[in-house]
This record gives sequence, C-alpha cells and structure tokens, in this order.
Amino acid sequence: MSVTDSSPLEIAKAASISSRNLAITDTSSRNDALTAIHGALSEARETILAANAEDLKAANKAAEDGKLSQSVIKRLDLSRPGKYDDMLKGILDVRKLEDPLNQTTLKTILDDELVLERVSCPIGVLLIIFEARPEVIANISALAIKSGNSAILKGGKETTLSFLAISKVISSALSTTQIPNSSIQLVTTHADIASLLDLDQYIDLVIPRGSSDLVRYIKTHTRIPVLGHADGICNTYVTASADPSMAVKLVLDAKLDYLAACNALDILLIDEAALTTVLPPVATALIEKGVSLRCDASSKTALSSSLPRSQSVLLQDAEDKDFSTEFLGPTIAIKTVPTPTASSADNIATAACTLAIAHINANSSHHTDAIITAVPSSSDSTDEKIARQFQRGVDSACVFWNTSTRMSDGMRFGFGTEVGISTNKIHARGPVGLEGLTIYKYLVSGRGQGVGDYAGEAGRKWRHEKVV
Amino acid sequence: MSVTDSSPLEIAKAASISSRNLAITDTSSRNDALTAIHGALSEARETILAANAEDLKAANKAAEDGKLSQSVIKRLDLSRPGKYDDMLKGILDVRKLEDPLNQTTLKTILDDELVLERVSCPIGVLLIIFEARPEVIANISALAIKSGNSAILKGGKETTLSFLAISKVISSALSTTQIPNSSIQLVTTHADIASLLDLDQYIDLVIPRGSSDLVRYIKTHTRIPVLGHADGICNTYVTASADPSMAVKLVLDAKLDYLAACNALDILLIDEAALTTVLPPVATALIEKGVSLRCDASSKTALSSSLPRSQSVLLQDAEDKDFSTEFLGPTIAIKTVPTPTASSADNIATAACTLAIAHINANSSHHTDAIITAVPSSSDSTDEKIARQFQRGVDSACVFWNTSTRMSDGMRFGFGTEVGISTNKIHARGPVGLEGLTIYKYLVSGRGQGVGDYAGEAGRKWRHEKVV
Repeated sequence: MSVTDSSPLEIAKAASISSRNLAITDTSSRNDALTAIHGALSEARETILAANAEDLKAANKAAEDGKLSQSVIKRLDLSRPGKYDDMLKGILDVRKLEDPLNQTTLKTILDDELVLERVSCPIGVLLIIFEARPEVIANISALAIKSGNSAILKGGKETTLSFLAISKVISSALSTTQIPNSSIQLVTTHADIASLLDLDQYIDLVIPRGSSDLVRYIKTHTRIPVLGHADGICNTYVTASADPSMAVKLVLDAKLDYLAACNALDILLIDEAALTTVLPPVATALIEKGVSLRCDASSKTALSSSLPRSQSVLLQDAEDKDFSTEFLGPTIAIKTVPTPTASSADNIATAACTLAIAHINANSSHHTDAIITAVPSSSDSTDEKIARQFQRGVDSACVFWNTSTRMSDGMRFGFGTEVGISTNKIHARGPVGLEGLTIYKYLVSGRGQGVGDYAGEAGRKWRHEKVV
Repeated sequence: MSVTDSSPLEIAKAASISSRNLAITDTSSRNDALTAIHGALSEARETILAANAEDLKAANKAAEDGKLSQSVIKRLDLSRPGKYDDMLKGILDVRKLEDPLNQTTLKTILDDELVLERVSCPIGVLLIIFEARPEVIANISALAIKSGNSAILKGGKETTLSFLAISKVISSALSTTQIPNSSIQLVTTHADIASLLDLDQYIDLVIPRGSSDLVRYIKTHTRIPVLGHADGICNTYVTASADPSMAVKLVLDAKLDYLAACNALDILLIDEAALTTVLPPVATALIEKGVSLRCDASSKTALSSSLPRSQSVLLQDAEDKDFSTEFLGPTIAIKTVPTPTASSADNIATAACTLAIAHINANSSHHTDAIITAVPSSSDSTDEKIARQFQRGVDSACVFWNTSTRMSDGMRFGFGTEVGISTNKIHARGPVGLEGLTIYKYLVSGRGQGVGDYAGEAGRKWRHEKVV
C-alpha cells in the first residue's frame, strides 16, 4: 500500500500497471502477502490504536457539537473488545478461501488439436469507497490481493488517521512480498474521488459501500461500472396459511436483528385472510419492541379491533411512499394483499401471490424479499407451489422462503466474506464474494488452424465437444 | 413485437412489465414463440423482400449521391442468395440451444432444512442498437425471447422499411403465443435512443452493435451498463521460433479473411531474431495480396535488404499511432520486439515475451491478441512455456496461440450464436452467447430460521455444505 502525494492520474496509472503484475502472481505469493499483512498489523496494534484514538477524539468533539452521530463513533472505535482481533482474523479467513483465479470454467474441443478454454482472471483495478469503519480497509485489501486486483481505497474522513496508520503498516508489509507495492493505494480527499471517477481507461470497477446518497452520487458521476446497492427496501409477504409463531419470529428477526442493515425488513405484506389471525400477534410483538407500525386502511381497521387499546392507539396511517421506503430504524409499513375472487383455495392463493409479486417488483429495491407460508407437508402442496411462484416471480437479488431477510449476507451464504451486496442486474448480484471480483478470458490453442480451413462445403467441420 | 407511436417512456415501461411476465414463461412457451416467428417470416418472404427493395432503392440513390458506401448496400440487401434462408435458419438454431434460464449454478446446505440456491434468470430489459443489417432483427429477437429478456430494438435508418415489415410479422406471430407482445419493441428514430438511454430505472443493459463512434457515444450518454466493444485493435506476436509457413498462413487468415471484422489482425509484433527468417515470407505474402505494410525502423531495414526491390519500395514507415489503430482495411503495422540481454535462449524468449505482453497491454483494445510459436514437441518446451506466459499475461478477452485472431466468434466457439463481442471487464467478456443475457438470483428456503438462531457462542453452527 502506498500513500503518496501522487495525482489521481498517477495513482490510477500505477494501479493499472500493478494490476498486470498482480494478475500473474501465483496463489502462494498472494497468500504469503496476506500472512505478511496479518503479522504486521498484529505487531503494530498499539500504534494503530493510538492513531484511532486521535480520530475518536476528533469525532467525539464533532459529536458534542452535534455534527456527528453516536453510531458513527461506535463504528469508528477500533479499540472496542474483539474488533481488532476480528479484523486480523478476517485476513486469515480470506487467505484460506480457494484461489478464485485460473479456474477453467469452460473447455471445448473445437477441432483436433484446437482447444478453447475459459479461465478466470482478475478484473483489474478496483476503486473502493467506504465510510467510517476503519477495519474494512484490512478486509478489502485482503480481498483485492487474494483476487489479484489492484485497489484504490478511500475511507470516510473521520477515519483518516486510522487509515493512514493502517496503510503505512500494510505498505511496509507488502514491500517484503512478491506483490507490487502500488497494488493497494489510499486516497484521502473527496476531490481525488471526483478525478478518479473520470479515469475509466484505468479503473475497471467502482465499489461504493455507504449511504444511498453516496452510491447515487457515484452512479451519476462515472462511466466506470458501479457494483453495489443504493437502497435496501425489503419486503416480507405473509400468506394466509403462515404459522403465526413463525411469522412473529421471522418478522422480529428481520426487523430488529440490526435496524440499520440494508437487509432489514421494511414492509410487511399480509394476505387479507391473515389480518385477524397472523397479523395481531406479529403487530403486538413489534409494538412491544418499540417498532412503529404504519398501516394501510385494512390492516389498521383489523388491528384496531383486535389489539388492546394501549397498542392500537400507537398505530399510524401509512402513506404511499412508506411502501417504497428503507426505514433504517424502528418503523415498519404494513400493506394488505386483498383476497382475489377465484374458484378454489388453491387459485385464490396463487392469485394473491401474483398481486404480492407485482407489488414487490414495482416497489422494492430488488435487494431481498421473503415469503412466509405454512411449512408444507408435501412437495406438491399449495404452500410449496406458492413459495416457488414467489421465488420465481420476484425480481430481486435474494428471494427467500420461510426465513429472515437478514440471511442475505456473504458470510451466512458460506462465501467466507463479502465485498458488498449488489442489486445490479449484470455481473454479480446479491452478496458478492471473491468470485464477483473476477472475470475470465478465452484462450484458444491450436496448431496453425485459420478460419479459412472451415469455410464452405469442403471445409473442415467443427467438433465443438464440451469437456468442461 | 409492437411498433407504436408510444413515447420512449411508455416503451420502456411496457418492456419492463413484459419482462416480468416473460421471465416466468417456461422453455416450451419461449421455443414455441420462435417456431411461430420462423413460420410467419417464412410465409411473409415476398412482403418483406418488397419492403427491403424499397430500402435498397433509397440506399442506391444515396450511394449515387456519394452519401452511402457500397458495403452498406451489400449488408442491406436481404435478397442476396441464401441471406433470407440464413435468417430463418438462425431462429431455429437459437431455438435448439439449451434453455439458459432456471439453471442451478450453486447449491449449499446452510443448515438442516435451510438451503441456498443460485438460479439463472433473465437480466430484464435490453436496449439493442445496431446498424444496417436487416436480418439481425430476427436473430436478436430470437436471442432475447429465448433468454427471457424484453428487448427494445433500433436499427440503422437505411433499414427502416425492412425493419417495419419484419417487426409487423413478428408482432402478429407473437400474438398467437404465450409471449407478451411488448417483449420485443421497435423504435425508429435517433431521438428515441437519446431518451431511452436516460431510463436506467427500466432498462438494464444496452448492447450497441456498430461503429466505434456509435459505441463511444452510447457509453458517454447513459448510466445503463453497456455491453460491447468500441475497437478491435488486434495483435499477433510472432516469436523467433515460429514456423514461417504457419506464420504466413495465420497472418493471411487473420488479416484477409474479412478485412472489416473487429477480430481482423492490425499489428504484427515480431521478434528481432525473426526479422530475416520469418518476416520476409510473411511480408511477401501480404504484399502480394495488396496489403500495405507500415514498418518500424528495424523491420523496414530488415525487409529492405531481404525483399525484392519491387516489393521493398512499397514499404511504409509506421507512426506511433499505427500500433494502436484498428485499420478495418488492407493495412498492417509491423513492430519489432528487440532481443533482450539474458543468460540463456530460454530466458531471452521469456524476456522478449514480457516485452510483447507489455506492448499489447498498453496498446491493444483488449479484444483478441495471438502468439505464434513453433509447435512444441513436449509440454515442458520453451514454446509451450512462452505461449502460456503470453496467454496468462495478455489482458484481453481472447488470447490465442497458433491460431488466427478471426477465431474469436460465438459460432466458432460453439455458442451457437452471439449477441456481440465484449471487451468489458465485468459480466461477459469475449463472444457473448445466451449465457451473457442472463444473471442469477439467490433463493434461500427454510423452516423458520432467523439469523438470531446463529448468534453468539451458544448459537447454531452453519453447515455450509456445498452440493452444486
């Protein structure tokens, strides 16, 4: 890692050149670099925590002046129990993941001694922008090196001293390894970002991790592809068949496990037939945990008559925009899915699910949406059918059945770690692990064949025999 | 397919709504739609060729006035022998490809009765812009329907009447099928394109097929991801060991098979040691075929003394920009790779290859680049090693060994067909087939598990057992 007075153009050029060298390093060189970084950060704990304490002092002052929230300070503090060790462990976790590079994902015999291979390789140069959590720099550096990509990093301004301290340590650790020093570079000013976003000839992918405003700003200010998500507007659809106790458990988990998370629940869709059966215990549980309920007319009417007055007085009227809002706090919107007219219970359930899907596709941010049904007794049950209809029809990165929206996460998915969650419709969608930091190239190896050999009726015929 | 007076916004909205319905159609519905389109286009041959004749008449007039080239007219003419039948056959070729949707590409047991699946699905709405070849509309419609994507199509203005005729036929064919009519829509004015490029909330991917100016215009005028390539600046590196007759064959094939192709050869890199052995027969063969040679100083000196005067007088001096130019015609640039100082033949070859790689990475358009060496006698030979070094080190979509750059093509790769060739570093690179028109979603199906169940020391442990 280098921290220099270089211009954004020099930084981007250096990253691009480094990326060519990094791309051809072998697995052990990249893993050895992670070992070196881990060792150096372990040794430098006191120095880094001292720098972090300086950042914290400035942040506390800003908080006293009302310019910074307590949650930022909490995220900034590297000295909280376990945090530094988790940062160190994260580097080793990445080291032990399978090498995502040089994997052959397709192999075809085109003709005798003419072989096509598709081999995974790094994307090239990543520009990663994130907010106040200083430990992220170690994690992201590890992911970039493991996947053979150069990275240009920019953290929140509150973390500047912590970042500088960490980056100096990483830099001197890298200089003892096979990994080019400018594979990881730190920039510290917002002006640098604006210039870097213009350098699409050197930078291949921008990954912003932060507020929806940050992500939107970046998307509208660059031609470089952007990987990430601006909003996490997450729905859970509770069908008439759902078990009330499962609904209570999953709604509480999805809403309350981490209020500010992108995959936290925002909107509850509920079948009209469940308004007086499943909804009341769910509403009571939420109210008891201090969650504000913004209800449409039908759900409010139903709850008003079934909840005790001490709770029903707390119900609020939802506005339309509540059904496409990421609350990031203790508020939930409730919308009723009306019972459609249909000839059978099975058809009613299917038609109601169609309504729920259409609502979600029109109003969610295509991040994570879930359905809760009864647990089916057989695979041809209505509940299984409805759940599959929902999972097929909802156009979101993660579509869940009988589990919490909070499950959408790289660690929980078994990817080891994640660089973020993407709502893009191309390249990588959902939690993005190392695989999302790779692309591929096509190799053809022959013995002198030209396309002219295959021309016309008399030409050679393609074998096109798939091996991988 | 519909051709309406709708505004770009209405078109994009209709495409988005159709895409939701198209995404949940089964394989046979999509294949049946291709059968219907094939049948309707077969029947309407005379009507369509009459419309095409009108386009041709206008184009011939424009050509007489010097406003249009003969090559455009050639591409425009659907009545040329075999062209209409090839268009029809293309639809059936796409129909018989494997369904790219609903493929499970990852399956992990997260915990007992908690399963993660990654399933392929359509991207959503494609905006496809292409130039004068009228048969492309049928091919692209087939690819879009097969992959479950809505498509908005815009062809070159010279093909307007042909497109309108074809689109009317496709429209009435689709109305007899399960596929939503506005899955395929045609727009006819350039102003529509400018408006559509602004609608990133409805359109997921733009695929421009045409001149580098068109592609560059689009890349700088939209936030929507763009798939394709602006330039095809292709290199072939001939090493000192290369067999002269193979070099002659492959260079002629790569340069002359189709002069205007994006994968046609532009720059020949040649080892200094091959200047008097391999280069002369290659240069003679090129000159005899009417190709202009733009040589650097070393190659010009070498050729001047080895070629007959009748040929050497034709040699031109290369300028720097020739080494990063896509000629699209009978011109080739020749650059010498100097012999590095090294202790052994093996090390010289490796160091020369490193120079060639660096030149290509800095100057090619990362489309297709090739190396020609002697055919190795064993897998630990220097030639094998050098070729692998080249294939690993060159950062291009297609990196070939002992074959022609013209090999980079979806049909030749066995993909059945292609929507284009991409030099993007994300999503899809190289020839893009049906797979490049898909993305995936993550499905998790459980029995009521929340993330809270896995919290802390006492929580449940993840199984993370990979099944697929």
